[in-house]
Amino acid sequence: MSEPRTARGAETKRRIVAAAEEVFSEQGYQQASVLRITERAGVGQGTFYLYFASKLDLFEALVDDLNRRVRQAMSEGAARGSTRAEAEAAGFRAFFAFAAEHPAVFRVMREAEQVAPAAMRRHYERIAASYAEGLEAARVAGEIGDVDPEVAAWALMGIGEMVGMRWVLWPHQDGETAPQVPKAVLDQMMRLIHGALDAKEDA
Amino acid sequence: MSEPRTARGAETKRRIVAAAEEVFSEQGYQQASVLRITERAGVGQGTFYLYFASKLDLFEALVDDLNRRVRQAMSEGAARGSTRAEAEAAGFRAFFAFAAEHPAVFRVMREAEQVAPAAMRRHYERIAASYAEGLEAARVAGEIGDVDPEVAAWALMGIGEMVGMRWVLWPHQDGETAPQVPKAVLDQMMRLIHGALDAKEDA
Repeated sequence: MSEPRTARGAETKRRIVAAAEEVFSEQGYQQASVLRITERAGVGQGTFYLYFASKLDLFEALVDDLNRRVRQAMSEGAARGSTRAEAEAAGFRAFFAFAAEHPAVFRVMREAEQVAPAAMRRHYERIAASYAEGLEAARVAGEIGDVDPEVAAWALMGIGEMVGMRWVLWPHQDGETAPQVPKAVLDQMMRLIHGALDAKEDA
Repeated sequence: MSEPRTARGAETKRRIVAAAEEVFSEQGYQQASVLRITERAGVGQGTFYLYFASKLDLFEALVDDLNRRVRQAMSEGAARGSTRAEAEAAGFRAFFAFAAEHPAVFRVMREAEQVAPAAMRRHYERIAASYAEGLEAARVAGEIGDVDPEVAAWALMGIGEMVGMRWVLWPHQDGETAPQVPKAVLDQMMRLIHGALDAKEDA
């Protein structure tokens, strides 16, 4: 992947990644072609190869781009909460809202397991690392119990991923526009999470 | 998919599905060929088409077969616990042991997102349904808090999936033979789960 040297170049590259998000989500990696993506982006194939070496190079760039955007959405969401519990819930709500608008965050990531495993691993590791950092700060501040921040980060990420698949991705695939996790489900989920994080050492 | 009429036919079909598990895991769905699978199974292509209509038909049969086997492993594991907490931990241990031996439970399932989405959904829905049933029984018996069994089932499934990916699948991909979730990680995970399930209604 090459970095564009001009603002116009950056915009062109952004358009290609946005088109890739749609085409890879709709057709899957194998079926998607560079031609289809450049047509969707409204750029020529010559332009494509200024920025990306191959379809795989673009796919990996998309994984990294989705990762950056979902983390940004989650931290902006979390910043809206005034207590730790509110911030946690707001972060998850932001994740689900992002996923409703960008189902690629599920579909592309799962396909990355075969197509670009190192990029997929980076995606989860980055989210887990920033999550664990927040949990460690909360633990030190006594806002949560004495949990292992790394294990808790992966566990909470798993909860978000599975609830998102069940209550956002599948309704989306069934044709619902911008599906939201029902409030009752989100409330239950947050209650489970608070219980998990407040857990005291076993006797 | 056709059902074999003889014990020998059933054994042949089982060999084909076992070969498919290896080949799909190693090469991914797109790269894997029926020829490679029949060679691995030691059967002719003619025999293959007695039982399966296509590569996709076999892939879907593999998803269902993995689902059946992982649920069996988990319930056999859970049956070894004498308290509810022990049963829960033993069920997860059995899941991780199955995943260490059958990384296809991650790799094939993720690929199913694109290749056979209905079969993938069935996989998760079946696990969630039997999980929710157990949680509902525990709730009625007062062994856990007043949680919504469906949300809790999906949340716990997410924890198992993510911990399994991080501490079983990735070490396996890095070349570790039969990786196990470290005891400290499993203990932390079970502590989070117990905290989650014992959670009392928010004031």
